[in-house]
Amino acid sequence: MGERVLYGYWRSSAAYRVRIALNLKGLSYQQRSIHLIKNGGEQHSAEFQQLNPNQLVPVLVDGDWVLNQSLAIIDYLDETYPDQLLTPQDPQRRYLVKALAQDIAIDVHPLNNLRVLQYLSGQLNVSDEDKNQWYHHWIHQGFSALETRLAASSGQYCVGDEVTLVDVCLVPQVYNANRFNVDLSGYPIIERVTMSLNDLDAFKRAAPEVQPDANAGS
Amino acid sequence: MGERVLYGYWRSSAAYRVRIALNLKGLSYQQRSIHLIKNGGEQHSAEFQQLNPNQLVPVLVDGDWVLNQSLAIIDYLDETYPDQLLTPQDPQRRYLVKALAQDIAIDVHPLNNLRVLQYLSGQLNVSDEDKNQWYHHWIHQGFSALETRLAASSGQYCVGDEVTLVDVCLVPQVYNANRFNVDLSGYPIIERVTMSLNDLDAFKRAAPEVQPDANAGS
Repeated sequence: MGERVLYGYWRSSAAYRVRIALNLKGLSYQQRSIHLIKNGGEQHSAEFQQLNPNQLVPVLVDGDWVLNQSLAIIDYLDETYPDQLLTPQDPQRRYLVKALAQDIAIDVHPLNNLRVLQYLSGQLNVSDEDKNQWYHHWIHQGFSALETRLAASSGQYCVGDEVTLVDVCLVPQVYNANRFNVDLSGYPIIERVTMSLNDLDAFKRAAPEVQPDANAGS
Repeated sequence: MGERVLYGYWRSSAAYRVRIALNLKGLSYQQRSIHLIKNGGEQHSAEFQQLNPNQLVPVLVDGDWVLNQSLAIIDYLDETYPDQLLTPQDPQRRYLVKALAQDIAIDVHPLNNLRVLQYLSGQLNVSDEDKNQWYHHWIHQGFSALETRLAASSGQYCVGDEVTLVDVCLVPQVYNANRFNVDLSGYPIIERVTMSLNDLDAFKRAAPEVQPDANAGS
């Protein structure tokens, strides 16, 4: 194994997930910032496309492996470095963790991604107000259902008292929702769990504001 | 274990994935149609929300288990009924299969879902032509990258010569793209693999047109 390098961006939710997972597992990594705005977006450069033709961050290079898709990366980390399992082995909890993580990572996040918001403003000429409502709409759709489910599953964290993949997906999504001034007071469990998680060192060190490329742009 | 019931809709890509997986594994199931258009969408009914607060299909009831999120359902099926594994055990292939499946199920499908197209037409008052371009845009974004990756991974199917989760995600996405008249001639590997897959009995029996609720509406 050579060195471990994470290509990401401070405000990318998907990169944020991978930083949390690496930190939870105590795995060291270097970071390369792919500026998603500057020069029309460095993720579109020919050089980056060699790493990821999808033109999205994150990409994790772990020795000989070049990996994309944050959930697939985290599963790889879980299977390769099983010390702190983010997806539990018990079948019922295993299914539940995956489904709840996907409730965030599939039903919410892809709709509120930078490239989607850019398409709304650009090609569709949608007003800032309508774009903002779009953002809020998908957060509320997703978080309403999630809050209902967490009422049954949560302990200190989303599923019981161990940190899981759901937590790894939730914190970046809440961070993002706060950026867009979404009122989350209707989701007391989501708020409580997020507060507990943000007290953990692995989450603190993964926060956008403390990354080397923080404030490099929106 | 009691009976197995799939709540879905003939044209739902995510339900289509689960039908394929069940068929590949030789698991019998009953179907309950949740009409996504009629009466403002039966997925929004109080009764269905008891099964799935996310108000999305599919839901699989397998004995005591009530499962949502098609990818989590298929992982559950793979782990519970491992006869024909859709996600292989070998670490490299395992990662690759998950990442490619997510390239479709996360980067493409959520953006072109019914509820998103309804939001574009409704709340955003986007014209049919612009909505169509939106649809085509995300297919081309996703399929361009996928075609590049399949050049390295494909054999008879998306990853080598065994049917995997990638194939299970690809066929419904291609079906959907064809409905929206997307020109797929620039993706010869996607077209070739899809044609091979559609020759398989498990895929044929999962096709939207042969479901009991086919042509019940768009």
